Amino acid sequence: MKKLINDPKNVVTEAVAGFEAAHSDLIRVSQEPLFIVRKDAPVRGKVGIVSGGGSGHEPLHGGFVGIGMLDAAVPGPVFTSPTPDPILAATKAVDGGAGVLHIVKNYTGDVLNFETAADLASLDDIEVRTVITNDDVAVKDSLYTAGRRGVAGTVLVEKIAGAAAELGGDLQAVTAVAEKVNARVRSMGVALTPCVVPHAGEPSFVLAEDEIEIGIGIHGEPGRSRIPLEPADAVVDRLLQPILEDLPPASGDRVLLFVNGMGGTPQIELYILFRRAAEVLTGMGVVVARSLVGNYTTSLDMQGASISVLQLDDELITLWDAPVQTSALRWGR
Amino acid sequence: MKKLINDPKNVVTEAVAGFEAAHSDLIRVSQEPLFIVRKDAPVRGKVGIVSGGGSGHEPLHGGFVGIGMLDAAVPGPVFTSPTPDPILAATKAVDGGAGVLHIVKNYTGDVLNFETAADLASLDDIEVRTVITNDDVAVKDSLYTAGRRGVAGTVLVEKIAGAAAELGGDLQAVTAVAEKVNARVRSMGVALTPCVVPHAGEPSFVLAEDEIEIGIGIHGEPGRSRIPLEPADAVVDRLLQPILEDLPPASGDRVLLFVNGMGGTPQIELYILFRRAAEVLTGMGVVVARSLVGNYTTSLDMQGASISVLQLDDELITLWDAPVQTSALRWGR
Repeated sequence: MKKLINDPKNVVTEAVAGFEAAHSDLIRVSQEPLFIVRKDAPVRGKVGIVSGGGSGHEPLHGGFVGIGMLDAAVPGPVFTSPTPDPILAATKAVDGGAGVLHIVKNYTGDVLNFETAADLASLDDIEVRTVITNDDVAVKDSLYTAGRRGVAGTVLVEKIAGAAAELGGDLQAVTAVAEKVNARVRSMGVALTPCVVPHAGEPSFVLAEDEIEIGIGIHGEPGRSRIPLEPADAVVDRLLQPILEDLPPASGDRVLLFVNGMGGTPQIELYILFRRAAEVLTGMGVVVARSLVGNYTTSLDMQGASISVLQLDDELITLWDAPVQTSALRWGR
Repeated sequence: MKKLINDPKNVVTEAVAGFEAAHSDLIRVSQEPLFIVRKDAPVRGKVGIVSGGGSGHEPLHGGFVGIGMLDAAVPGPVFTSPTPDPILAATKAVDGGAGVLHIVKNYTGDVLNFETAADLASLDDIEVRTVITNDDVAVKDSLYTAGRRGVAGTVLVEKIAGAAAELGGDLQAVTAVAEKVNARVRSMGVALTPCVVPHAGEPSFVLAEDEIEIGIGIHGEPGRSRIPLEPADAVVDRLLQPILEDLPPASGDRVLLFVNGMGGTPQIELYILFRRAAEVLTGMGVVVARSLVGNYTTSLDMQGASISVLQLDDELITLWDAPVQTSALRWGR
């Protein structure tokens, strides 16, 4: 294993310290318990939004803390849920009196620990709602998960719910829009190589030299099938099919097309995937009205990518376009 | 070789087609000859800025085309200079009557082909100035280069010169500020793994399982030395030393600290590097006034990173902070 790290035990705390040093215009860090919080939190009268989960998926979630997206992110150890303590502390830190929304990817540890933190917060008279994201169409149940997994679609839930909160939506409205995005987004991924978890020091699984894994999870959990390497266009078609069957968009519908890199795949390849996915959608009469391409929900150094399709409407487009100022996504002011 | 591509011959054209599909709000693409141009080019009365070079370094340069940065980018084949033809066509496409600045990384092929295009443009009465970037302190001469190589510091030259042009600077002023940034920025990189060029299908060089290359070029050109893998902090110190010796910043000076990923390195590692680099600079009394962390000048799927330090002043800070709207860098409006 070659990595640009010091002691594997300190990977998360050192990375968060670097994150704080780089982005002190946007965020603050609490080291004990560990969470990242919007610099001006709590914002009085605004719904606070907290997400989190195991580290190793950066920029998810810390990179999305700022104006118009998350108020706090709670990073656990690599691929391991944070405990209820820091989640509770982050929830308190962002409570501006209008309640707090937890956005939680559907993994058993995350769901349990966020639930415990929400229960404890309610003892302090903080109203907490929770939206569980489960956009991955690859598998029904999986390692670490009952039901579908929450993957890259979570970024879209966080952006759009964050805009709703920034624009003054109350807790019920912000929760409803987060649920709406989750209900309208589907994702599926592919891996060319495994990732290497720093404290493990070995690949999380093994793929043959000519083999790829369709439906991979963001922790290297098994997907649907291992197949021989195919041209990019064939891989895109394979990922899109279950997404489109599950939604399915009608001719004339507008979608946001999101091609997400797993961390080790060059941008040039992500755009080759985007090209084909846009071609397929356009061929169905579906309008690719918005797009996102890049490393947003990663799996350390894994080579691979995922495709997400979100069915838009006027409300979601307005909220997607609303200003956002975070280290990983920013536009407007 | 496992890559998410179709025919290796079509990697660049397909990626650019995907780029166009994803970012048609910001850019247009000319497929023949191949270049990416700001959607509203030419902007009447504004200095046009063109950059380009071999593909495989994305988002450099296409990702920086838009408002407040580049007017056009000319992508060559992977790791191969574009010919004068598309450079000339891009120069004409962005000429708004105020002249055009070419920003060229110091590689022999790029320098030659941009020079030829500039000569041809002058026959069409377009005034062209050229700034050659050469921020890499690793080696004096190198494969493909006489003198120092242009690497990640080029991003800072493009951002700041782009702001100067957007704010109405004339060709002389925009050229001067680009020269100024290049004179004040130094970079050095490290590779943990080689990259694999699609049409070659094999690693560009070989490193042993416990070996890293200090001073790597962005095409995998040899650097200063191969050494056994070290902790991240030691690697940072090794990269920073020649940068700081060459500048050198004084106590109280303000710098922009840029940690650039080579394409295959997780963000969590880039922030670990940033943490140590900021610590070293702060320890010298140098103020890290601005920061940039991420994959901006890549080398396909190479694992590794580079550090750049730019000595700021009030003018450079104002131009760095000015609004920019490109697919890879955006803030303000």
